[in-house]
Amino acid sequence: MPPRPVDIELRVRYAETDQMGVVHHSVHFVWFEMGRTEYCRAAGFSYAEMEKSTGIFIVVAEARCRYRSPAAYDDRIQVRTWPAEISHRMIRFEYEVRHLDSGRLVATGETFHVPVNSSGRPVPMPPAHLAQLQAFADSGAPAGG
Amino acid sequence: MPPRPVDIELRVRYAETDQMGVVHHSVHFVWFEMGRTEYCRAAGFSYAEMEKSTGIFIVVAEARCRYRSPAAYDDRIQVRTWPAEISHRMIRFEYEVRHLDSGRLVATGETFHVPVNSSGRPVPMPPAHLAQLQAFADSGAPAGG
Amino acid sequence: MPPRPVDIELRVRYAETDQMGVVHHSVHFVWFEMGRTEYCRAAGFSYAEMEKSTGIFIVVAEARCRYRSPAAYDDRIQVRTWPAEISHRMIRFEYEVRHLDSGRLVATGETFHVPVNSSGRPVPMPPAHLAQLQAFADSGAPAGG
Amino acid sequence: MPPRPVDIELRVRYAETDQMGVVHHSVHFVWFEMGRTEYCRAAGFSYAEMEKSTGIFIVVAEARCRYRSPAAYDDRIQVRTWPAEISHRMIRFEYEVRHLDSGRLVATGETFHVPVNSSGRPVPMPPAHLAQLQAFADSGAPAGG
Repeated sequence: MPPRPVDIELRVRYAETDQMGVVHHSVHFVWFEMGRTEYCRAAGFSYAEMEKSTGIFIVVAEARCRYRSPAAYDDRIQVRTWPAEISHRMIRFEYEVRHLDSGRLVATGETFHVPVNSSGRPVPMPPAHLAQLQAFADSGAPAGG
Repeated sequence: MPPRPVDIELRVRYAETDQMGVVHHSVHFVWFEMGRTEYCRAAGFSYAEMEKSTGIFIVVAEARCRYRSPAAYDDRIQVRTWPAEISHRMIRFEYEVRHLDSGRLVATGETFHVPVNSSGRPVPMPPAHLAQLQAFADSGAPAGG
Repeated sequence: MPPRPVDIELRVRYAETDQMGVVHHSVHFVWFEMGRTEYCRAAGFSYAEMEKSTGIFIVVAEARCRYRSPAAYDDRIQVRTWPAEISHRMIRFEYEVRHLDSGRLVATGETFHVPVNSSGRPVPMPPAHLAQLQAFADSGAPAGG
Repeated sequence: MPPRPVDIELRVRYAETDQMGVVHHSVHFVWFEMGRTEYCRAAGFSYAEMEKSTGIFIVVAEARCRYRSPAAYDDRIQVRTWPAEISHRMIRFEYEVRHLDSGRLVATGETFHVPVNSSGRPVPMPPAHLAQLQAFADSGAPAGG
């Protein structure tokens, strides 16, 4: 069973466009990050609270995006997020960005995340949060929309 | 004698444009901030070091920009920065943004800054840094260019 | 009767924070812009469509923000927007940004807007859109929430 | 002989940091773009002029970054850029981001670029610009610094 995804919706901001008239390619990584925030919330915890309570930060080790078609100002966008790999040392998320109305694919991506302490040293993922993430990912039914 | 200004130069980034084909109006505030960083350095201290060594943050209490003419991708831009008012409770910076080649005015602005501690409570400006800023502002000769 | 306001809600993005741990002061201007987009939509037209169909751009002539209290990552934010002045040459919008849950004031602001053609020359506001904006602003009952 | 690289230098802006106290991971893609702008200029043409004179846009088809170590506010950064593959249908740039003072590696990345016309349809690279890029890449000696 594939990992359960979480969907968010957003509207393209004017400030997110560039002079080509479409969303600048660095913005998709910000949308991915919004997807991760909501994935954690759907799994039962707040990423903001986790950072504060554990002192652990989940840093981005690698990020990648394939741009399939442009997104324009005021377009309604759906970002689908799911963890493709989960371990206590690394989490890999994958993403699909679509036009909400047409379903047209805008971008796909993946990001790799590594837990570190406040000195930047790799540490294991906080076990309770890892368990919540894994349980939600395994829970199958589609979420959001 | 007016306060001594400091000039910085930059090139407009593609990511700073929007679909109107010009620099997005939120970007000018980022340029003002770059001007302040270099103003501190010219005055003899690093703002980054000040934050670390004193635990004091200088928060923006108000910001204002008047847009006179557009700036475009790859334009060379000059940002002139000077402190129009300095006290131990508040600093007000003013700015002039110009096309470097033509001298055409792009924007003018001002920002108000208040020192706070890590809990966000207002505190006096660190006295040594305040003195450096004041001495440099009073030193008259134009800087940069 | 004061102009009818429109409220939008958003969540603070991680990318919108800076190393002070709060939302960077340039971001509020992006939120104001989102408020204007939704104001136009509430008034009956799409700003994106207006740009395309009339060839007229509404440029920001001045922008100002007073920062009252910080906003943090993942905070739920409300942006209230209303046109404080409307004429065929200039529109002035005002804004109140609040924490959605506590109602605490985060920022207030205003922006001045001038219609220009594709060469950047001032032109009158497209009359049909101006009328829609005025009629909605005069219609009194609060919107959004 | 490896393709000739071009180096640019920049200082990390306060606005580029996030609440982790380091540069947000979406910013590196903006730096890569700055590297490409200067690569074109070193090769003898302005990317801005090319867009205007040919009506051709070079869109980003894929972007990828590996984050090796953090960059902090006010750090001096070097971005090295070179075209790893050049054809009339696609250009692949590679990047190395380093702390200028220590030489410590901050990030590596690559981006894939495809020329399109104003309707977004793939077209061949403008031949004169392609030739300039190729000639410069083949010219061997290190550039910049």
